[in-house]
Amino acid sequence: MNEFRIRNPDYAARVVASLASQPFMHTLLGARVMLVEPGLVEIACPASAALLQPAGNVHGIVLTALADSATGYAAQTLMDVAQDAVTVELKVNYIAPGVGERFLARGRVRRAGRTLTVCDGEVFAISGATRTPVACMLTTMMAVASHG
Amino acid sequence: MNEFRIRNPDYAARVVASLASQPFMHTLLGARVMLVEPGLVEIACPASAALLQPAGNVHGIVLTALADSATGYAAQTLMDVAQDAVTVELKVNYIAPGVGERFLARGRVRRAGRTLTVCDGEVFAISGATRTPVACMLTTMMAVASHG
Amino acid sequence: MNEFRIRNPDYAARVVASLASQPFMHTLLGARVMLVEPGLVEIACPASAALLQPAGNVHGIVLTALADSATGYAAQTLMDVAQDAVTVELKVNYIAPGVGERFLARGRVRRAGRTLTVCDGEVFAISGATRTPVACMLTTMMAVASHG
Amino acid sequence: MNEFRIRNPDYAARVVASLASQPFMHTLLGARVMLVEPGLVEIACPASAALLQPAGNVHGIVLTALADSATGYAAQTLMDVAQDAVTVELKVNYIAPGVGERFLARGRVRRAGRTLTVCDGEVFAISGATRTPVACMLTTMMAVASHG
Repeated sequence: MNEFRIRNPDYAARVVASLASQPFMHTLLGARVMLVEPGLVEIACPASAALLQPAGNVHGIVLTALADSATGYAAQTLMDVAQDAVTVELKVNYIAPGVGERFLARGRVRRAGRTLTVCDGEVFAISGATRTPVACMLTTMMAVASHG
Repeated sequence: MNEFRIRNPDYAARVVASLASQPFMHTLLGARVMLVEPGLVEIACPASAALLQPAGNVHGIVLTALADSATGYAAQTLMDVAQDAVTVELKVNYIAPGVGERFLARGRVRRAGRTLTVCDGEVFAISGATRTPVACMLTTMMAVASHG
Repeated sequence: MNEFRIRNPDYAARVVASLASQPFMHTLLGARVMLVEPGLVEIACPASAALLQPAGNVHGIVLTALADSATGYAAQTLMDVAQDAVTVELKVNYIAPGVGERFLARGRVRRAGRTLTVCDGEVFAISGATRTPVACMLTTMMAVASHG
Repeated sequence: MNEFRIRNPDYAARVVASLASQPFMHTLLGARVMLVEPGLVEIACPASAALLQPAGNVHGIVLTALADSATGYAAQTLMDVAQDAVTVELKVNYIAPGVGERFLARGRVRRAGRTLTVCDGEVFAISGATRTPVACMLTTMMAVASHG
């Protein structure tokens, strides 16, 4: 439906390398990139014990972290090689308890502007063949000069 | 300015014990309760290496996690002993890079209803005697029957 | 994709009558219901002169009002006959100038709970055969006892 | 507490003239500027019949419109004479019914950046000497080249 212009042909490698360089997402949460397309990124993590609440569900902030990364990297896929996507703001609704074997966030670009990109995100809890929506998000991302 | 009715006289102990029971906040982030008053909670964590981004600042989600906890526990202080505060939704703006020795979130109740409580949060980066605002938040919390 | 349970068989008439009883939406903005399905409502209004900004586009709040109504009524379609949907909170991103002959908001239920319903909304500017997305929204609606 | 740099000495006249040029705010809602300081604007409107809901309270979108304008103009006070503040996104919580003789919104700058300005807003219902908070808001404003 959306037609996006690609300005960095290595957008997929950029996303994978960037996530791997983030200790918080990659090491602490165990987050991994599952899918990268122009304007669309999926990121998943397992429900490890360290992320569980006393009630047995995963802390909502873990779902928020996944969706923030997925939407930020979705914005990143459409940016110039010299630009990084940073989160200006995000809003998340938790719609079901974070109970599952693993969690998958999908981020999609709704509108890519020169400075700002608006994305939506949704997070699913996955248990066997069952996929349950657990959170939805709306974010504003900003293109800044890469620090690299 | 706000006058709140206390329904659980052990509200402070409840907040401290609850945070300590959350591996994600307590163990992974190292978050600790610094202040508990009716409708007001402060939570802090150090800028440990595991939370740093490649650019040297703390991941924004860490700031969000602190403010979510501070606002949720601020709501909790005004709830019944048989109720838990759960996050319905949150919105956060990042207003400065997360650079500091430690981070302090302050959550305040703006309106405590029978079912829903609205809170605001702000997060400061602290380095020596300098305190810089780095994030601000608006959240909706819901009172649910305690699972304990 | 979503399967919703209908508890008020007259949900469509309820939505149309309710909008007609709101002077702000119905008279001032000229808003009219275009589509009502379980969990899905579309509302449109013309770009009248009174809603225009000096730059010639419609005030963003008009887009927000349309999407708030569409999402609120989408939640209403799934509620009991003795319940009204009220807006707890909303978040909207403006993604293009409000330039068009008329504006159409589509509200959809993402999750219908006993007390709270989470919806998303999008607004399109329509000019001839062209439909441009101009705003997107995420809302939390609450079921309260009807005042009628 | 905040120290802001003024770049347009005529910031107050600019705000008053801009609101007066908006038919939606000025004519339909009857909104008027009550206070302008660097980074702080108050706007009020009466509870006219056209804004009332069947239940007798003012439509929540009216409160949102007031707070959006107050926060946008608070951002405007700190901008260059050749810049306009436009709303990127807003999030509002309704915390009490909109019942009062008139409504006053206060917008404050939380952080003024080169491109983006983050503001908070609160809206009060006023009846005689009573002032009740009815809504709170967090917004992101963007500086764009003036269209004038």
